[in-house]
Amino acid sequence: MHFSSDNASGVAPEIMAALARANEGPAWAYGRDAITGRLDALYSDLFERDVRVFPLATGTAANALILASLTPPWGAVFCEQMSHINVDEGGAPEFYSNGAKLIPVSGRHGRIDVAGLEGAFAALPRGDVHHVLPKVLSLTQATESGTVYSLEDVGVLCDRAHKEGLHVHMDGARFANAVAHLNCTPADVTWKAGVDALSFGATKNGAMAAEAAIFFDPSLAEQFEARRMRGGHLFSKMRFLSAQLEAYVTDDLWLRLAAHANGQAQGLVGIVEETAGVDLVHPVESDEIFVRFEDKAAISRLRDSDVSFVPWDPAAGVIRLVASFQTTDEEVRQFRAALHSAVGDQA
Amino acid sequence: MHFSSDNASGVAPEIMAALARANEGPAWAYGRDAITGRLDALYSDLFERDVRVFPLATGTAANALILASLTPPWGAVFCEQMSHINVDEGGAPEFYSNGAKLIPVSGRHGRIDVAGLEGAFAALPRGDVHHVLPKVLSLTQATESGTVYSLEDVGVLCDRAHKEGLHVHMDGARFANAVAHLNCTPADVTWKAGVDALSFGATKNGAMAAEAAIFFDPSLAEQFEARRMRGGHLFSKMRFLSAQLEAYVTDDLWLRLAAHANGQAQGLVGIVEETAGVDLVHPVESDEIFVRFEDKAAISRLRDSDVSFVPWDPAAGVIRLVASFQTTDEEVRQFRAALHSAVGDQA
Amino acid sequence: MHFSSDNASGVAPEIMAALARANEGPAWAYGRDAITGRLDALYSDLFERDVRVFPLATGTAANALILASLTPPWGAVFCEQMSHINVDEGGAPEFYSNGAKLIPVSGRHGRIDVAGLEGAFAALPRGDVHHVLPKVLSLTQATESGTVYSLEDVGVLCDRAHKEGLHVHMDGARFANAVAHLNCTPADVTWKAGVDALSFGATKNGAMAAEAAIFFDPSLAEQFEARRMRGGHLFSKMRFLSAQLEAYVTDDLWLRLAAHANGQAQGLVGIVEETAGVDLVHPVESDEIFVRFEDKAAISRLRDSDVSFVPWDPAAGVIRLVASFQTTDEEVRQFRAALHSAVGDQA
Amino acid sequence: MHFSSDNASGVAPEIMAALARANEGPAWAYGRDAITGRLDALYSDLFERDVRVFPLATGTAANALILASLTPPWGAVFCEQMSHINVDEGGAPEFYSNGAKLIPVSGRHGRIDVAGLEGAFAALPRGDVHHVLPKVLSLTQATESGTVYSLEDVGVLCDRAHKEGLHVHMDGARFANAVAHLNCTPADVTWKAGVDALSFGATKNGAMAAEAAIFFDPSLAEQFEARRMRGGHLFSKMRFLSAQLEAYVTDDLWLRLAAHANGQAQGLVGIVEETAGVDLVHPVESDEIFVRFEDKAAISRLRDSDVSFVPWDPAAGVIRLVASFQTTDEEVRQFRAALHSAVGDQA
Repeated sequence: MHFSSDNASGVAPEIMAALARANEGPAWAYGRDAITGRLDALYSDLFERDVRVFPLATGTAANALILASLTPPWGAVFCEQMSHINVDEGGAPEFYSNGAKLIPVSGRHGRIDVAGLEGAFAALPRGDVHHVLPKVLSLTQATESGTVYSLEDVGVLCDRAHKEGLHVHMDGARFANAVAHLNCTPADVTWKAGVDALSFGATKNGAMAAEAAIFFDPSLAEQFEARRMRGGHLFSKMRFLSAQLEAYVTDDLWLRLAAHANGQAQGLVGIVEETAGVDLVHPVESDEIFVRFEDKAAISRLRDSDVSFVPWDPAAGVIRLVASFQTTDEEVRQFRAALHSAVGDQA
Repeated sequence: MHFSSDNASGVAPEIMAALARANEGPAWAYGRDAITGRLDALYSDLFERDVRVFPLATGTAANALILASLTPPWGAVFCEQMSHINVDEGGAPEFYSNGAKLIPVSGRHGRIDVAGLEGAFAALPRGDVHHVLPKVLSLTQATESGTVYSLEDVGVLCDRAHKEGLHVHMDGARFANAVAHLNCTPADVTWKAGVDALSFGATKNGAMAAEAAIFFDPSLAEQFEARRMRGGHLFSKMRFLSAQLEAYVTDDLWLRLAAHANGQAQGLVGIVEETAGVDLVHPVESDEIFVRFEDKAAISRLRDSDVSFVPWDPAAGVIRLVASFQTTDEEVRQFRAALHSAVGDQA
Repeated sequence: MHFSSDNASGVAPEIMAALARANEGPAWAYGRDAITGRLDALYSDLFERDVRVFPLATGTAANALILASLTPPWGAVFCEQMSHINVDEGGAPEFYSNGAKLIPVSGRHGRIDVAGLEGAFAALPRGDVHHVLPKVLSLTQATESGTVYSLEDVGVLCDRAHKEGLHVHMDGARFANAVAHLNCTPADVTWKAGVDALSFGATKNGAMAAEAAIFFDPSLAEQFEARRMRGGHLFSKMRFLSAQLEAYVTDDLWLRLAAHANGQAQGLVGIVEETAGVDLVHPVESDEIFVRFEDKAAISRLRDSDVSFVPWDPAAGVIRLVASFQTTDEEVRQFRAALHSAVGDQA
Repeated sequence: MHFSSDNASGVAPEIMAALARANEGPAWAYGRDAITGRLDALYSDLFERDVRVFPLATGTAANALILASLTPPWGAVFCEQMSHINVDEGGAPEFYSNGAKLIPVSGRHGRIDVAGLEGAFAALPRGDVHHVLPKVLSLTQATESGTVYSLEDVGVLCDRAHKEGLHVHMDGARFANAVAHLNCTPADVTWKAGVDALSFGATKNGAMAAEAAIFFDPSLAEQFEARRMRGGHLFSKMRFLSAQLEAYVTDDLWLRLAAHANGQAQGLVGIVEETAGVDLVHPVESDEIFVRFEDKAAISRLRDSDVSFVPWDPAAGVIRLVASFQTTDEEVRQFRAALHSAVGDQA
């Protein structure tokens, strides 16, 4: 049972098939192929607005390249304390932006709230060249804690950010999980709520390696291609990135896969809730589950039973489980048994 | 007939099969999977020496990340005037190295020679903090002009560079074509001749998107993982990069594919040589062919006959054709007819 | 009365005289002059240890260049939330380090304490290339709040940082004020307590524009000259920087000037303490005084009486006053009258 | 006799006096002082046009900060092969621009000519994101070879550059020497001829450490202050930079000093021309003289006679002498005797 990460999952059959189709015959390189040529229109349809789409292979590239497009080197990016851009990308945003400053904003269950954002704005000195300029708010949707911002949350935060003169970036490495959870349109939770640019993730949810940098305001994308080139992220056989991104949103594949992952996560939630000695650290609204163990020794026993997971915060007895589009009912059942055995539950 | 680039080709069946196999079951993310775990040993066998291998998806990433590992920001990289790192990567080497200086060295048929290198060394002021420090020699093998450095060429240039205290990087985007042409071992033309690090290309020769940064001296690779992470080039589902790199060198696939491309290029050479009104700009030693037309109008006629190519130097009447591992005998025959028709040759 | 900043003060006569002497006759450029040649020995005497000294003209340059010497781009620098490097240098540390991450540590009265540092260490994920590496602790001495770390404070924080594998930088823009306050030797509060490199400020305390980057471990300074050159901070007529740094520490000038500033600050303290309606925000241990007004309208009245100061936190009714080596008793007396008048105190 | 560099000279008395005057009383820091407040108007008068002036302390800072204002990281700067920005600033332009590319243009006697520029334009591939964008032409006036571009030269080169869409920067570390030589107005040889921004040097010609970044098009200066701050080049006691820049152009001091230096250089020229066994490498149009010795042993003898100079190209028997605003007639006479003695001339 591999609950270590949604990245541990493989590639959805529909996407493997798309790669095979893309492999029929030659094509112009560097994005001048037919599949890539269709992406802007396809994603403009999906988002009900003219958008610019840039295929990429990693979420870090998408985040860092978008942020560098939205802030000068002397700008500040407000983000949740434990956001991926702040703690999990090895400084990629700083590298691509040539040193912009990430300002951590405290949140609850992975979500920034307006009070926290106000506090961060207030703490940043202004009005003098000595201080970096506030430029971007970055929201992670779904969050790193497995929660999801409501449409209202996103709208309120974007409004506040725009009032401050900021652009809003959404890190959507698990965007599909959030949309599936919210049961909204992709437009609702992005530009209609005030988001200016989106890292649209596919890799965690069934692609091989494909993400899209999506700009709702094309004028913000003017330097994107130069930055992508310099970052070594312009793929020569780009059609194979684009084919993934095309298949991913065709026939709602992305939402079906995400709904499955979310559903299996709820299956795990049910198991945790029924089990004595463990509880949930955060509400589970996407595919990530954070479980706290009263008895930390039970964590070792769980590991010994062949369940893969990440020991998130060993001191606090917290582990992370992640469901994926591939998680089977059988795995969920096996997890139930393994968990019960680990905590000594005879149920 | 697509002779625009070897990047216009697709993915070799053996590599598609390897991707399918890699897709069976879950795997740890970020390179902790079994396939990636085998790469160091596999490539150490191939190169007859302990090497460090880092899977990447683009040649620009491989070049820029290796160069950044070999030079401080205040270093200089000597490279052929028209080398990819100097003119085709949008400044990626400067970006990754935080501003190292590329010093163009004039060459003949795409090859740096010792006299040119001596001249470049002599022209660089030394001995004072005002001047950047000479740090790297970068050789492209096969070159951007379709030629190949002989083993002796590489040896002599590396010796001269090492005497100056430089490390030597080899840009091997078409390394397979060069090795196939030289009929040598990969070791012969790299570390045995003095090369310290290699951008080992697979994408142009049958992979979907896979390159390897290979360090013959592991101590030079110490910061590579941090740089790769910051560049957004650490793939979560790395097994799909690694699977390509594994299949690519299994059963000599890489050399068979390259030998085919080189052979088809020689087929094109024969056609050019037999045709009046066109001649070769450079010796053809890999898969690239540069053809000069006496009558530039013939170039338009060739294009109208459905031959894809790059108008390399329109003012000089020069076009570039590239064969690939997929080029068929039929395409070569069709090219013959199209060329003859374009130049008005009744043969 | 100019209490806006110690930077509002001019140049001490002894330093003007030194500049005049340095102007007698020609000298080799770029630091190969006799005065610069004497600095290493002079400061090694002062610090009772072999040190490397690099003359600079701004504190931001000193801080940023030292930090870039102590951390790779993928490193983290722990610093007090409101430290100059974090909020007042426009991102210079990030620029010079090519994107290292500043981690704000909360403190009290401008001082980091061990608990805060422990918390920051604990909050930084480790052990994976996804995370930046903890590399530097930066302490500001005297702090931005006008307080001073005790010798014990510095020792404990350095010990903790070293145990974590960090180097320790001290931002000593007001180092003289701190040493004068502590009545210790410069060695006591730096390397003897565990500091690895010091931004030794002179500008705020009587120099025209002179700071020294001082390395207690010369091996850390190996790349400093290259970085200084690239930053445009290598002065051609360096003797005029060095002359300031020489005169500054000759005959204890620096400590006499700082003691005067500290003493005048205490004069202001006495006035605040005796006055109803105002109180001190922080203990005053150097030349900076933060005063809170019960009645914010009194702040405007104070300004109208020709007292220059910085409205530090208008919402909280807090202003900053800074004494300097030039502050006269007469100015202090005038301030007393102005303050009493502003708050309506008839005393 | 110190002919090693104009940087070996000291500070003109008028400038020392201005520094003393600037030291009377306190002043607001960071450029909010009265002297700095006068600079824009003063230099706008001097240049007969509204300009923005930014005081700096080094020529490298002026050049690198201006270039970073004129090109994105993915731009190219065309400059003479041996220009200061290309070979003498340790990569500062690359650092400040985050990796822009300097394209060396061959010249004659230190001057780029239109043919060389055309060649460089032609050699740069265009029209694709793979290639850096041509953005800036940088001219050095007076050149590194001691020559001066005529007004017509500058005009023709600027026209050509503008037609290509480039901005033009002038490195005027020895701008005064050039203007004195040309006997033109500062406007004639800058914006009237097409220059967009100027590094206006004062340090080599009598200042202590003062240069001005001057923008003839203020819109190009919008990000300058942020860049200056991040580079650590915002001086707290800026009035002491500004006082130098004010005194320097008051009563034509700058032109008088430069005319003196140029005149003494001509004195040296006369001596070289009258002496057998030595000749001039370049026309002498400013304060630098490059002398070739038939007998290289004479160079050692000259050095032994207490003449300081730079051994420019030892292999070719070339030395550099630089006159300055302080060079006396007596020093010129002594040089004559020393040179004659060194070459064994009995005259």
